[in-house]
Amino acid sequence: MRSRGKLYVVGIGPGDVELLTLKAKRALEESEFVLGHKTYVERIRHIVKGKIIESKMGEEVERVKKAVQLAKSHIVSLVSGGDPSIYGMASLVAEYVYSTRADVDFEVIPGVTALCSASPLLGCAVSGDHAVVSLSDLLTPWETVEKRLRKALEGDFVVVIYNPSSRRRVDKLVRAMGIVLEVRGNVPIGVVKNATREKESVFVTTPKDIIEDPSKIDMHTILFISNSETMIVNGKMITPRGYSRKYRW
Amino acid sequence: MRSRGKLYVVGIGPGDVELLTLKAKRALEESEFVLGHKTYVERIRHIVKGKIIESKMGEEVERVKKAVQLAKSHIVSLVSGGDPSIYGMASLVAEYVYSTRADVDFEVIPGVTALCSASPLLGCAVSGDHAVVSLSDLLTPWETVEKRLRKALEGDFVVVIYNPSSRRRVDKLVRAMGIVLEVRGNVPIGVVKNATREKESVFVTTPKDIIEDPSKIDMHTILFISNSETMIVNGKMITPRGYSRKYRW
Repeated sequence: MRSRGKLYVVGIGPGDVELLTLKAKRALEESEFVLGHKTYVERIRHIVKGKIIESKMGEEVERVKKAVQLAKSHIVSLVSGGDPSIYGMASLVAEYVYSTRADVDFEVIPGVTALCSASPLLGCAVSGDHAVVSLSDLLTPWETVEKRLRKALEGDFVVVIYNPSSRRRVDKLVRAMGIVLEVRGNVPIGVVKNATREKESVFVTTPKDIIEDPSKIDMHTILFISNSETMIVNGKMITPRGYSRKYRW
Repeated sequence: MRSRGKLYVVGIGPGDVELLTLKAKRALEESEFVLGHKTYVERIRHIVKGKIIESKMGEEVERVKKAVQLAKSHIVSLVSGGDPSIYGMASLVAEYVYSTRADVDFEVIPGVTALCSASPLLGCAVSGDHAVVSLSDLLTPWETVEKRLRKALEGDFVVVIYNPSSRRRVDKLVRAMGIVLEVRGNVPIGVVKNATREKESVFVTTPKDIIEDPSKIDMHTILFISNSETMIVNGKMITPRGYSRKYRW
């Protein structure tokens, strides 16, 4: 019997290598092949002992096929920024493997997603219930994006926006901020750019300010839209969990 | 000048110690005091070199005060299951420190939240946009919980339910499943119990089945409610990310 391979889909966290899990580090160390987008591979290159195969954005399907092929007889890691289930590589691998019944043993190693590293940088923007929406319309029709944003705001969720902007679609960010203004008003919005990476920047703004100057927001940014309980306390954005309704200090 | 202390609020992930981050492990190792709920402390006891102070549920406010006090001149870790921003200790610490202007240096170390470890066990229940709701009405009024659940379902989010049940409030789970039936119909619901821990169990059910026998769901369970795109493929629950609209294998 020939030895079987293994495919790890590895969440490498938001940026800081210290935010890798022990399991992710071990998988990367023991892999004979590591595949991923250039940006992500760069962060973990020093950990890898095997061969690195870089690819570009838009080449995800080819990357998955290649990884599955190699994993039939090798230990392979496919890296994903943040957590693989949240706008990462997990679904593409799952969809491909389960629908083609590919003969490969694969395992997703979860990671720290951007919202969990970014929220505390603002104070505590998220503390419990929240909704996560991407403004990218590459894979989701824009009407669906708008509907989700509106319903999440109506539900008084803290709304966390991934992929808020890109050079190609600044207009979409402006439309989204129009919906925030309409449903919730000119509420505080927490902004975290490059969380735990070089050039990290953290500030609080409003939908009106973003509409006036959307250039402050780019694709490496994550936004937190206040719910009705979010407070600004000494410059920090805090959504209390409700202890203050029950307790006094 | 006396040496200053430090307070780490440490996300220890969903259960498996291998899912600690490198940073979390280091913080626990270097802490002179480690405070936390008994269940969480148990998982990381072997890593800790300092003194462990355990407490029970309901004693969170006292635990935070104690941790802040100790952290004025010691290195202290306050442990939180999963990620501290998602139904964890981050907001209580932030609220206390920023509102009392407590003279303490604190840092949240993010962790892997339950949904990221549980989603791949089902296949790929979450792949992008999603809403997270807790059914516990200890800290959130039940009307708010119901409103959020309804809006999230109307927005066609994959809805991830934390704390779905407890002995005290089985009726709330039944009411929530009634809302799912009403808004989305008898759709597949992915269930993960004790993700990455002993007695892990994974299955797919429906709101009708849960209403008939709610005893299958307990407080150590996380639920994933399908959106309109979620499919069951060879027994696995998969929410595709939209690649299939753009590509063919």
